[in-house]
Amino acid sequence: MKKYNVAIVGATGAVGQELIRILHLRSFPLEKLTLLASKRSAGKTIETEHGNFIVEEFSVDKFQGQDFVFFATSGSHSLEFAPKAAEAGAVVIDNSSAFRLDDNVPLVVPEVNPQAALTHQGIIANPNCSTIQMVVALNPIHQVSPIKRIVVSTYQAVSGAGQEGISELNTQLGEVLEGKSPKIEYFTKQIAFNVIPHIDVFQENGYTKEEMKMVNETWKIMGDPNIRISATCVRVPVVRAHSEAISIETADYIGEQKAREIFSQAKDIEVIDHRENGGYPTPLDASETMVTYVGRIREDISCENGLALWCVADQLWKGAALNAVQIAELLVSEN
Amino acid sequence: MKKYNVAIVGATGAVGQELIRILHLRSFPLEKLTLLASKRSAGKTIETEHGNFIVEEFSVDKFQGQDFVFFATSGSHSLEFAPKAAEAGAVVIDNSSAFRLDDNVPLVVPEVNPQAALTHQGIIANPNCSTIQMVVALNPIHQVSPIKRIVVSTYQAVSGAGQEGISELNTQLGEVLEGKSPKIEYFTKQIAFNVIPHIDVFQENGYTKEEMKMVNETWKIMGDPNIRISATCVRVPVVRAHSEAISIETADYIGEQKAREIFSQAKDIEVIDHRENGGYPTPLDASETMVTYVGRIREDISCENGLALWCVADQLWKGAALNAVQIAELLVSEN
Repeated sequence: MKKYNVAIVGATGAVGQELIRILHLRSFPLEKLTLLASKRSAGKTIETEHGNFIVEEFSVDKFQGQDFVFFATSGSHSLEFAPKAAEAGAVVIDNSSAFRLDDNVPLVVPEVNPQAALTHQGIIANPNCSTIQMVVALNPIHQVSPIKRIVVSTYQAVSGAGQEGISELNTQLGEVLEGKSPKIEYFTKQIAFNVIPHIDVFQENGYTKEEMKMVNETWKIMGDPNIRISATCVRVPVVRAHSEAISIETADYIGEQKAREIFSQAKDIEVIDHRENGGYPTPLDASETMVTYVGRIREDISCENGLALWCVADQLWKGAALNAVQIAELLVSEN
Repeated sequence: MKKYNVAIVGATGAVGQELIRILHLRSFPLEKLTLLASKRSAGKTIETEHGNFIVEEFSVDKFQGQDFVFFATSGSHSLEFAPKAAEAGAVVIDNSSAFRLDDNVPLVVPEVNPQAALTHQGIIANPNCSTIQMVVALNPIHQVSPIKRIVVSTYQAVSGAGQEGISELNTQLGEVLEGKSPKIEYFTKQIAFNVIPHIDVFQENGYTKEEMKMVNETWKIMGDPNIRISATCVRVPVVRAHSEAISIETADYIGEQKAREIFSQAKDIEVIDHRENGGYPTPLDASETMVTYVGRIREDISCENGLALWCVADQLWKGAALNAVQIAELLVSEN
């Protein structure tokens, strides 16, 4: 079996570290794994359950000989260096938003549009975390009857904002529990014992960039810009895994029974839906799992052909590292 | 100025204690305040910034001579004893769900349907917390153009589940931060670092009772059962104040500018809506305040004549104790 040289750019970040774990957990055929980060992190050891890994300083010449380069850095860094990695002959899988809406770059969720990955010209974009789990959950329904409208509210974990988000939550919780006044350094307001209805920058139309990602990326991945979508994205004091309350309207009547069947048979979806205490997925249930959970399935009583549901997934895994590695697996299996 | 004898049944609970504070903070014309609770709590002192109060054992004969009796106990307790307090000549303001949908009992939010309070036959019901703040926010819009549909997702504080909810969150946070496995005693799943999409019991149609309260109570308070409403109610690890992401469709086009004007001029609503870091209300901003906050006002891009907004209020105050005292104030001012 062919083995592959893989590099991770931004290996010390929240997503970078999960990429190392996921590559091992899924037994990706690694020839050599190169971990790259800024000069500041060079020489640092990343400890994982799969062994310890030494971080090297990022430079463009490290792209030589790579089969896959995962970018888990900022959009501006990806914009500058991802094309260089592609020029060096690697396939880039980029976790930033830099190329997601670029017509020449496929935006791929393997359960939804795997064929798009094969059209790449050196760069493949990994979608936004909250978008990925939503399209995994909704595409099976969309295949049965086109979705006309989506209204979604999110409950997003602090690790979506990186290691700093986790630190800020834990530090603030400790401060509040000790009776101290918590310091706000990373988020725009205190996140401990609070929720913040603001993720990424505000746009002209009053939505945030995170909310518009859920619109524009869903259109591109599901290949249907006729779906009307409104999102409210909210940060909650959860460490890991995003939750979404989703209402949809479909062209034809599907109903609750049929919807439950569709979800149950869908790839990588696990239905937890008992109308009793605990009979639904929560972020803690989804943390460090590879599936997208769907629960609270019911007919939306506020419209015709409506369904309401609750969707939870580990946004560091399915929403980032896992989806990226699945894209690489797709290409490997086509080889 | 006439003064009134007031009793609080369930004075030691989360809402009971806030009733004591609100009566004082709003300088309600008290002749005598009688605090009633179970035998177990009798003799206990409740300490507030307005002085210390001794709790008496609840019994029916304590209703004699009362002008107002606030019930802040279970539905079954209200069902049994509220009629007895009314028979004794008091006006009952009941915080439980026991009488809310009773055709002979007005369900009142003073900013929305004050006139209903005057039709009482001895008992007035105080609505569900998540419903109150939603109708305060939406009624001014409904008066300009009828609302046809509401889709709402809530972010509800643990104190909505009483003192036990607050204790469970704090205990679990302490346990997790010390590296221990947290005990789950009160909520159905761990609430620390988690969110739980389940409040009150499940109904036949897959919605929870809390979610259906937001439908049925909104219809009764706003006097319009043609509004189609779908809710998803979620508990979040916040101590105090509920948040709601709301999408509405109105009969006519209102637009964002006009909507902002309507909210700004509405009674007891405070608009915080700047499209910049921190320019929106959060639960910590709303805690121990008497208004309903509205922010994130924007045109809903997923439908015609749509508006999306974010609404936050202290559910122990506006969602319970304050609204109840405002109802009493209404009757006092009509006297």
